[in-house]
Amino acid sequence: MTTNDAERRAMRRALELAVTPGVPLGPNPRVGCVLLAPDGSTIAEGFHRGAGTPHAEAAALAEAGAAARGATAVVTLEPCNHTGRTGPCSEALIAAGVRRVVFAQPDSNPIAVGGARRLREAGVEVVGAEMIEEAQAINRTWTFALMRRRPFVTWKFATTLDGRSAAADGTSRWVSSTASRRDTHRLRAQCDTMLVGSGTVVVDDPELTVRDDADEPVAVQPLRAVMGLRDLPAGRRILNDRAETVHLRTRDPREALAMLHERQRQHVFLEGGPTLARAFLEADLVDEVVAYVAPMLLGSGASAVADLGITTMTDALHLHVTDVTVLQGHDGEDTNVRLTMRRT
Amino acid sequence: MTTNDAERRAMRRALELAVTPGVPLGPNPRVGCVLLAPDGSTIAEGFHRGAGTPHAEAAALAEAGAAARGATAVVTLEPCNHTGRTGPCSEALIAAGVRRVVFAQPDSNPIAVGGARRLREAGVEVVGAEMIEEAQAINRTWTFALMRRRPFVTWKFATTLDGRSAAADGTSRWVSSTASRRDTHRLRAQCDTMLVGSGTVVVDDPELTVRDDADEPVAVQPLRAVMGLRDLPAGRRILNDRAETVHLRTRDPREALAMLHERQRQHVFLEGGPTLARAFLEADLVDEVVAYVAPMLLGSGASAVADLGITTMTDALHLHVTDVTVLQGHDGEDTNVRLTMRRT
Repeated sequence: MTTNDAERRAMRRALELAVTPGVPLGPNPRVGCVLLAPDGSTIAEGFHRGAGTPHAEAAALAEAGAAARGATAVVTLEPCNHTGRTGPCSEALIAAGVRRVVFAQPDSNPIAVGGARRLREAGVEVVGAEMIEEAQAINRTWTFALMRRRPFVTWKFATTLDGRSAAADGTSRWVSSTASRRDTHRLRAQCDTMLVGSGTVVVDDPELTVRDDADEPVAVQPLRAVMGLRDLPAGRRILNDRAETVHLRTRDPREALAMLHERQRQHVFLEGGPTLARAFLEADLVDEVVAYVAPMLLGSGASAVADLGITTMTDALHLHVTDVTVLQGHDGEDTNVRLTMRRT
Repeated sequence: MTTNDAERRAMRRALELAVTPGVPLGPNPRVGCVLLAPDGSTIAEGFHRGAGTPHAEAAALAEAGAAARGATAVVTLEPCNHTGRTGPCSEALIAAGVRRVVFAQPDSNPIAVGGARRLREAGVEVVGAEMIEEAQAINRTWTFALMRRRPFVTWKFATTLDGRSAAADGTSRWVSSTASRRDTHRLRAQCDTMLVGSGTVVVDDPELTVRDDADEPVAVQPLRAVMGLRDLPAGRRILNDRAETVHLRTRDPREALAMLHERQRQHVFLEGGPTLARAFLEADLVDEVVAYVAPMLLGSGASAVADLGITTMTDALHLHVTDVTVLQGHDGEDTNVRLTMRRT
């Protein structure tokens, strides 16, 4: 079974709807839906606005009302077959008299799976895997977390051109430029969890919030997670009420990620020092590396990356460059270069 | 005095002529010249084809013959007033009856200076500094060497993302990708001198030639310079007949550059190991840094940049990023990132 031009156009529109700006990130995937009349004209559109709100299909059906009878639903994710805070979309589509469903990404979520089968059983035509890659790209970390049963981990660090995070006397100011720090806040905002070690909390006392370009905290903050066995001293900034904070009492990265997976966390932004990073690198639990490279040379001082126990070149940890961005310096600050890489 | 449209068009053309591909680099600046008739039409064009051949003005005058009488000469560099292997261009322009000269970059070469003055004395109209920046960019290192009385120094090194040049056991393969090595040959070809320390010659035995993409030596090779007090053992590849080689018997970077300046060298490509680089960095004699960054982590091993005696952040050696280029890996090799930086 194939799709027609109107359905492919509708799928492109549904992909746009899925990424409507302003939708808060949550445990749910971003989904868009377009309902088409038999003549290919659009009856209604819908998208998911975050956990607890109607799914994209339900939103479109509500807008369409009785006009949904005989319609084709074009949706970026296989309709769910699961009663959560909202009812199963498969049943809603059947009840509304939808004749045909075209979807992009199959729902491999074990508790939601089965929507396509249920629809077919009820006599609805179902076409899957249309523009599947575009749809998967939208919910990259959601898909990753579902398949791998742990959050996707992005490790961020700042370094001089010669791999130093601080000078010999411990001074480290200017390794990150203002532009790099602003950029880091934008990346944090794309994650649902920021993770540091308890040592960093004790020593550096970071607040670990996302701030906008005016340095104000944004409305929706990622979870602040601290891992390690040390108690968190009262009064630390990470314990303030600007965002939720969780203390994961483990030193094992795998265990920490399992705890975060239970909390439906899908994208961890690793911000700790070299010790925490080493633990994740050694456990092969870093999926993405973001390096801010400052064009300066120190020749000595603290290494930006801790000893990983690698002694020969063939054991080097290879990465695949996915993006290079130049972050122009302002007010006399260095222009930094951001390298984004994936594990190969 | 100002220029007219025809003269500005002619200057743009002269700038193109100056960088005609295939002109071998030598101690002379690259220059282009256009002769315009009083109605603004082009009478003749010329450009300098390298040391020992006619200057751009002479080439254009030869093409124009008697038609040069009453013409305007538009030239990218102030006409010389010096008898070298060819006669002074100022006198040639006067003798040919040229009425007006528009030039871009003033000639600050002490032995050639004075062309504009000589022309004015002979009653020729002279307008200078038209598109001066474009003209200076063409002869960047020539201008630098003239003003600073030493060659421009580009230091190239390869590093992992975490600042390592080799693993703990000394293995270093793959820190440079094939694409990076090819790229290095293209950069070498833009210099007139490649410089290494005598230690590198003894230990690594590099040939230090420029090869094309088919790995064949190119026709015009830069000078191979070795500095240091150690004798060069016979049979070393750097002593073969593929290119000229000079041994500078000094360990002082300033002295080495003075020797190269005497040989009219304008652009040194520093290729030695960390010891040589340190000597130049500490003497503040590195003008440009080209870093090939391999997206891999080692966590330990040899540092790509030697200890520079810098102990605190405010003493860090700051660079200004002028170019970032992604060098796509082939055959499964890492994609490297080339950062080009200037001293700030």
